[in-house]
Amino acid sequence: MERQDLIFTNHVAETIDRLVVAMNPSKLFVLVDVNTASFVLPRLQAMSKTVADAEVITVKAGDVNKDLEALASIWRQLGDRGGTRHALIINVGGGVVTDMGAFAAATFKRGIRCLNIPTTLLGAVDASVGGKTGINFNGYKNEVGAFSEADAVIISTTFFNTLPQQELLSGYAEMLKHGLIADKRIYRDLLAYRIAQSDPDHLLRLLEESVKVKNDIVSQDPTEHGIRRALNLGHTIGHAFESLAMKRKSPIPHGYAVAWGLVVELILSHMQLGFPSDELQRFAAYVYDNYGAFEIDCSDYDELLRFMGHDKKNVRAGEINFTLLKDVGDVKIDCTADSEQIKAALDIYRDLMHL
Amino acid sequence: MERQDLIFTNHVAETIDRLVVAMNPSKLFVLVDVNTASFVLPRLQAMSKTVADAEVITVKAGDVNKDLEALASIWRQLGDRGGTRHALIINVGGGVVTDMGAFAAATFKRGIRCLNIPTTLLGAVDASVGGKTGINFNGYKNEVGAFSEADAVIISTTFFNTLPQQELLSGYAEMLKHGLIADKRIYRDLLAYRIAQSDPDHLLRLLEESVKVKNDIVSQDPTEHGIRRALNLGHTIGHAFESLAMKRKSPIPHGYAVAWGLVVELILSHMQLGFPSDELQRFAAYVYDNYGAFEIDCSDYDELLRFMGHDKKNVRAGEINFTLLKDVGDVKIDCTADSEQIKAALDIYRDLMHL
Repeated sequence: MERQDLIFTNHVAETIDRLVVAMNPSKLFVLVDVNTASFVLPRLQAMSKTVADAEVITVKAGDVNKDLEALASIWRQLGDRGGTRHALIINVGGGVVTDMGAFAAATFKRGIRCLNIPTTLLGAVDASVGGKTGINFNGYKNEVGAFSEADAVIISTTFFNTLPQQELLSGYAEMLKHGLIADKRIYRDLLAYRIAQSDPDHLLRLLEESVKVKNDIVSQDPTEHGIRRALNLGHTIGHAFESLAMKRKSPIPHGYAVAWGLVVELILSHMQLGFPSDELQRFAAYVYDNYGAFEIDCSDYDELLRFMGHDKKNVRAGEINFTLLKDVGDVKIDCTADSEQIKAALDIYRDLMHL
Repeated sequence: MERQDLIFTNHVAETIDRLVVAMNPSKLFVLVDVNTASFVLPRLQAMSKTVADAEVITVKAGDVNKDLEALASIWRQLGDRGGTRHALIINVGGGVVTDMGAFAAATFKRGIRCLNIPTTLLGAVDASVGGKTGINFNGYKNEVGAFSEADAVIISTTFFNTLPQQELLSGYAEMLKHGLIADKRIYRDLLAYRIAQSDPDHLLRLLEESVKVKNDIVSQDPTEHGIRRALNLGHTIGHAFESLAMKRKSPIPHGYAVAWGLVVELILSHMQLGFPSDELQRFAAYVYDNYGAFEIDCSDYDELLRFMGHDKKNVRAGEINFTLLKDVGDVKIDCTADSEQIKAALDIYRDLMHL
């Protein structure tokens, strides 16, 4: 896997034109979903002659449509509309478009080039970087895919002004996670930024730092056998919260689940590794102020533990596997906790979240 | 792409058992087609406890079944029957099974490990080595796939005794091609071996030399942008012969088409680069004695030229692209010939083949 170019810019059209000229594809495709087809593509077509002249492939929006049927439709359109092995595809959208488009590119004629342009904060910070591509299949998320990096990722905040606040907060939770993993300066800058007072250039700088944290970790461990598991911070509990919310038939955004999951896993970090109490309290207050609380009581604990056990990645000899922190910037992968410790942490979460 | 292990042995079961113990998979799958399910799998199950205990996945035989439906069925069975990202799949069969099984392995849960055990001579010498995996799709051969090497390829001649003579000759043509590309000693040894007097251990040694020729070239150029095109020797004309035979509704085996294609391309090599006349005559006689002749007359020439032009890989500015030889072992990629030169070479082919 070659390391991809990450380009942080709020001059997207010029950047696309420059890259496409340099890459000189035999044919250019742009992949969008029905949302980016309405809100983003017309702006790009107006600003970039390259995009205006490209073949557009449109897929349905939403994770339920990140499936084999959509993938086969992309492959078919690439072939029917003149794609050769020297073609280029630009994926413009959230994680669904970039995951599926980059997988189509990795496999059409055994691999063509692609660029990713994430249009959501979560996509920019997370899904479009790291080479994880794929589709949902047979009832499982990302059951089929490849580790394959885009040739370049163009990261911009200019598309975020049409996003709902909830979408921005959801992406921001992953940035907070990267700050916690990385170091205190980055982390403090993130806590100081007010999401509501949208400032695209300031957000772009924070995003650049955050994505670089992830990219440094991924390039050390592209196939996720070691340090890349640092990026699971907050996700063991977060996924269990998501599953519980799904079962209650009131789903929560992924980033919100991560924010609440981070609170519980920082509590476990405090209990097991002495993560500083004042940092924990400050973080919990930030989450409570911006994300509110995910409501649980002690009758939910056994169900939550079952959900953690279902994710086979987390279980070793009956204990649940976690990534924890000794302090901000000091990560310990392959930690474990038993049910009693997890229940104690959930008790403290409820205190900190005023439940 | 990591370089894979190539293991040449006529002790297949012991080799499988040793590799599987060392790889320690969470679950073992064996992929076969209906032919290898009947003729090869029972022998392996009787000799190897590892194989006897594995989950067997069976697909239909034949290139027309190397399709998305079969691939999806493999993915589904891997998931439903307990495959995790630490599973291992052993592909036992010809090119259809190894191409499709290795692609399924490259993409199931973003990549699990696999071993290839080619059971045809053509598969051993060609399709199971080089990392080209994939399926036919949307009417095109290998439209979807990946460059992904198996963790190991176990190459043996013990399965070939159930193959028809025609199948052996078909694979042997690719070995002859490798001899022509590589050097005179290897090439002479190949011409000296009598395919009819089947000697498995002698054939295994010749096969080992031949596969190493291919593997050396592929590892210099895994994504086929340069010297790997040396392996196209004989194939530009060979593919045109295959297409013409298909149109006549009497298809010919791929290796036979390559043998005849090699004769024509050595004639072009003689015309353009001075390839030695005595070598050309000896090779043409060997092909005629073992493969007979593909019958053409001058009314077929324009059709053959059209077929060469249809394969976009071969066409540059109106001329057809060839790999040619200055002498045995002295390859020139990116040669071209115009229609008049090709027609003159086809005239000489008809003389040499007594047509």
